[in-house]
Amino acid sequence: MGKVCIGIDVGGTTVKIGLFQINGELLCKWEVPTRKEENGKYIIPDVAQSILSTLKEKGISMDEVAGAGMGVPGPVRSNGYVEVCVNLGWRDLFPEKEMSRALGGLPVKAANDANVAALGEMWQGGGKGYEDLVMITLGTGVGGGVIVGQKIIAGKHGLAGEIGHIHVRDEEKEHCNCGGCGCLEQVASATGIAREARRAMAASQMPSVLREAGDQVTAKDVLDGAKAGDRLACQVMEVVGHYLGLALAQISMTVDPEVFVIGGGVSKAGQFLIDLIYKYYDEFSSISKDKGGIVLATLGNDAGIYGAARLILD
Amino acid sequence: MGKVCIGIDVGGTTVKIGLFQINGELLCKWEVPTRKEENGKYIIPDVAQSILSTLKEKGISMDEVAGAGMGVPGPVRSNGYVEVCVNLGWRDLFPEKEMSRALGGLPVKAANDANVAALGEMWQGGGKGYEDLVMITLGTGVGGGVIVGQKIIAGKHGLAGEIGHIHVRDEEKEHCNCGGCGCLEQVASATGIAREARRAMAASQMPSVLREAGDQVTAKDVLDGAKAGDRLACQVMEVVGHYLGLALAQISMTVDPEVFVIGGGVSKAGQFLIDLIYKYYDEFSSISKDKGGIVLATLGNDAGIYGAARLILD
Repeated sequence: MGKVCIGIDVGGTTVKIGLFQINGELLCKWEVPTRKEENGKYIIPDVAQSILSTLKEKGISMDEVAGAGMGVPGPVRSNGYVEVCVNLGWRDLFPEKEMSRALGGLPVKAANDANVAALGEMWQGGGKGYEDLVMITLGTGVGGGVIVGQKIIAGKHGLAGEIGHIHVRDEEKEHCNCGGCGCLEQVASATGIAREARRAMAASQMPSVLREAGDQVTAKDVLDGAKAGDRLACQVMEVVGHYLGLALAQISMTVDPEVFVIGGGVSKAGQFLIDLIYKYYDEFSSISKDKGGIVLATLGNDAGIYGAARLILD
Repeated sequence: MGKVCIGIDVGGTTVKIGLFQINGELLCKWEVPTRKEENGKYIIPDVAQSILSTLKEKGISMDEVAGAGMGVPGPVRSNGYVEVCVNLGWRDLFPEKEMSRALGGLPVKAANDANVAALGEMWQGGGKGYEDLVMITLGTGVGGGVIVGQKIIAGKHGLAGEIGHIHVRDEEKEHCNCGGCGCLEQVASATGIAREARRAMAASQMPSVLREAGDQVTAKDVLDGAKAGDRLACQVMEVVGHYLGLALAQISMTVDPEVFVIGGGVSKAGQFLIDLIYKYYDEFSSISKDKGGIVLATLGNDAGIYGAARLILD
């Protein structure tokens, strides 16, 4: 077993790379641009080249490296097969094998990026010390990851942890990107919160700080407004908290984690958001008071490299 | 490793016991009454006595027995601790340890009965050949069990697989036994289907075969009526199918099993029910066509002894 491990978080614009001690300490991190041309064929060689030169520069030999993990933006089968990563141009690929070959036979494991971020928060983030957790990332969309016994539950078809596409809202008539209507993502993502605010402004004459931004209103405006006591903003956030709490309760009745970890840009609202979620989570899980808690993620955009590095340590 | 194993399904009225070959073949099964007096202190000695005398009668020595598994009607902690089983009078107990002592040190494992039934269906029932499944039992209530990688997911607080208490119906105003409103159990259990039928009869003047039974209408009446094309019965079953399909979709977005196994008395409606669930399951999981299938349970009331026996074979 080596002393260090590598975490690679492959995104549509940049690839984030981190070098870690196997105890979880981040030694250094850097980025390389994601070259998507020609079906993303340069991504793996670019990343491997960058890793090899960094290791050389730091005087770390390959013998000292336990392996590398990769988070990729799409479903990864249990045998490492990736059918498609739309954002990278990848199709019909075994990225583990290719990266391993490019790194001189180093052990490499790949998994879905949202699941990997959950593993990162378990290892060194808001979920540190827990073995069973569900992470929910509230960003442009809503992503998620389910960890049981310190292992990612990827699901047989890569759908496990697709928390954003849990149907929560019957009266929603607009379509989600997935083709459905009433997905959690439609109301609890940054995009969804902004839309909910536009709807609330259109539906009432209530004065509100949100009206200053008008149609340009953002999730941050809504959260700041709600924290400051703006009535319309509070009304919007009650709707958001309602559906987030409902989804958490539904997930508890399925896998019952020790803790939910809330991350993504929207989670910058902090304890205010957590308290709001708790209110409805308790309402929708009245079967028991003894259930998983809710905490904030702490690793931000680094969750992916942490989790990727952790992948290889099993 | 022994050649046979024992499955014990502890219910509130009788304890079912099965003797199995470790390949899953049922050799014999029998029942003993559940003596609940004095906080159920006689249950374990009664069962142990019955097992020992059956083994003796069959000429099977303890060396040939790999162990015994128990399904109990309440949450079991991962260390085997049972805080309470209301139906048995048990409180503050380690049933594994007690049963093991009563069986001369035989290895014993205990788990929640609904979870154990899911394991049984995986081993020798409708879910045979699958490693990841979710079982949903539609009986007087709605129970469930989640299996991932051939292991029960019990959850950190014993709530995993509490499928019956997933909140699905916002407009429900009556309370569920759990204290909440709008649980799946309230609409998809046998009790729930009958209630839905009474509501439908009261809400319309539509002629229907269900009116013959009036307030005594049962879930079976509704299913038989719907199969025969009775309009009111079909209308009720569409509501039931809607919420079952919704719950399955929500579960898929969390753990994404290979297959859902539908059991319990209501599942005697067979493929008719499965088709109805599929219709709404597809509607509420439009993110992907590639997802877990839905099959019928096949072991009936024996699922518990099968699963209990399987518990000990890990």
